[in-house]
Amino acid sequence: MSTPETMKALVQLHDGYSGRQEGPVIDDLAPLLEYREVPVPQPGPGQALIKVDLAAVNPSDLHFIKGEYGQPRVKGAPAGFEGVGTVVAGDTPFVGQRVSFYATHSGTWADYALTEARGLIPCRPDLRAEDAAGLIVNPLTASAMFDIVRDSGADSFILTAAGSQLGKLLIALGRDYGIAPIAVVRRAQQGEMLRDLGAEEVLVTSDPEMLAKAAPIMKARKPRILLDAVGDQHTADLFFAMPNRARWVNYGKLSTEPPRLTQLGQLIFQHKKIEGFWLTEWMKTASPEKLGAVITEVQERFVSGKCRTDVTAVVSLADAMSELPAATKKLDGKVFLKP
Amino acid sequence: MSTPETMKALVQLHDGYSGRQEGPVIDDLAPLLEYREVPVPQPGPGQALIKVDLAAVNPSDLHFIKGEYGQPRVKGAPAGFEGVGTVVAGDTPFVGQRVSFYATHSGTWADYALTEARGLIPCRPDLRAEDAAGLIVNPLTASAMFDIVRDSGADSFILTAAGSQLGKLLIALGRDYGIAPIAVVRRAQQGEMLRDLGAEEVLVTSDPEMLAKAAPIMKARKPRILLDAVGDQHTADLFFAMPNRARWVNYGKLSTEPPRLTQLGQLIFQHKKIEGFWLTEWMKTASPEKLGAVITEVQERFVSGKCRTDVTAVVSLADAMSELPAATKKLDGKVFLKP
Repeated sequence: MSTPETMKALVQLHDGYSGRQEGPVIDDLAPLLEYREVPVPQPGPGQALIKVDLAAVNPSDLHFIKGEYGQPRVKGAPAGFEGVGTVVAGDTPFVGQRVSFYATHSGTWADYALTEARGLIPCRPDLRAEDAAGLIVNPLTASAMFDIVRDSGADSFILTAAGSQLGKLLIALGRDYGIAPIAVVRRAQQGEMLRDLGAEEVLVTSDPEMLAKAAPIMKARKPRILLDAVGDQHTADLFFAMPNRARWVNYGKLSTEPPRLTQLGQLIFQHKKIEGFWLTEWMKTASPEKLGAVITEVQERFVSGKCRTDVTAVVSLADAMSELPAATKKLDGKVFLKP
Repeated sequence: MSTPETMKALVQLHDGYSGRQEGPVIDDLAPLLEYREVPVPQPGPGQALIKVDLAAVNPSDLHFIKGEYGQPRVKGAPAGFEGVGTVVAGDTPFVGQRVSFYATHSGTWADYALTEARGLIPCRPDLRAEDAAGLIVNPLTASAMFDIVRDSGADSFILTAAGSQLGKLLIALGRDYGIAPIAVVRRAQQGEMLRDLGAEEVLVTSDPEMLAKAAPIMKARKPRILLDAVGDQHTADLFFAMPNRARWVNYGKLSTEPPRLTQLGQLIFQHKKIEGFWLTEWMKTASPEKLGAVITEVQERFVSGKCRTDVTAVVSLADAMSELPAATKKLDGKVFLKP
């Protein structure tokens, strides 16, 4: 397999951070990205070049290209963190194999991507392309955060944005490990699907009685961990309605509303805490054994059907500039880019 | 020394919590307390009865009698957490000795108070009454929180309400241990006194340029811990201006303003945390050796003049109903009640 000198890619038009916090919503890609021909990146020591089969589009990608993610943009470099493909060159025994990967050196929204060889995850042959393309960001985040839930010792946990792909993975984990998921969603019509999946309780933030309905649930189920991807006042209100020693673990900011800490005294007298979770940081501290075990379990869960990737759209890379923004606004699943 | 059957005390008029969060400001004691004759409490097993020489008035007392502290009020029981006095009876070898104590069973704003015998702290004879009466709440809180600062490994720390008695204790600790205090105050005129005491930097929240002035200080000194007794938007803004891995440790709520988390993403990408500190909880987890060492050091620091209790007023118990509210509004030191 010979590698061409150039490739098509969605490349970033800006360096660094925007200084804004607008959330992962994009109406128009033109101010941010350009679809064009760029040189195929060359693997250096410890790196691997992958021919991309399918790339994921995560909220973190949208935050990133808008300049509001935890690492700076690089002008001229392809976007896209996650994908699946075939290793075509590099400092790795996996050349020729299908791998899931997180692109650290040149993004996945391109024909070829470049990453650290030690991060390659060989895929089982029976793993669907859509599952393989989204094997890292959501499933690893779900598993790592679910460890926090298990360590809490509580019999239940709360999650916001429960209808998201990551939310559904968390609900399935709660169901399978017997820790009751309390699912928080914006719209009542998401409730039934989440109950079918394993949510024991559903709270709807558009319901003016939401907090009144939450009170008996908090009392009966005593959740300790609130896994939150929204970061709005509803989340803060739920946190303050939780029992002693509750922890608000924020991992995303779908809302642009700055939540108010209306009962700060609970941090003193009820030992509550507010903190964040970032997969990038977690991966730096997790042992290779832990990572390997989680990855193996994640693949098994997808292949066995215990969890699944709901696909909203597969957009061709060539059409992304016009089609991707609308596709990312659909709420029922995940969007992929096909080079 | 024979103990009478009755005593004078400031007794609470309400049970439980008020459900409000108004802060430690009191205009009128009449809705909350009554000065009257009550039976002298009787020590049970493991308890000690103390004839009160001098009782402290802390912000936590004011929160408590207003029903907004972390433990419920008891109607008919004397208020007051802290004081110094002579042990007159009980299950303890310290009968006849002068002790500092934290009243767990009947409050210090009375002729006699009742507490657990194992919590008695024998006082050095050279310790002033005002220092002895306030030996626990502020100095122990300061020492325990300063441990968090030392554990952070940073060369500086930030404290709000820096002009308070507790703030001054923290500044003196920072000075003596070589960890630069960055003092946050409301009024510029407090700055010079705090610099004399050991504050390396002073930030004034009434200065519209406060955040701009904070930026180079954050960059140069890289504080990691923010010890906060105010809980307003200024605190939140300073927290978000701090470097990576900053921790906002809230231990009081002098402001009634609910702070907004304007940059929640920093909890994810900069590993920042928001938490509380409560001495009552800390004392449950600290070892007796640790407590003993801290108490010994605190007495030594007072006697040697390394730290001092600034006295605003000593109000007689009989005059407290009319005089205490005004005395607690003075900001330059601490108020005591004299039975």
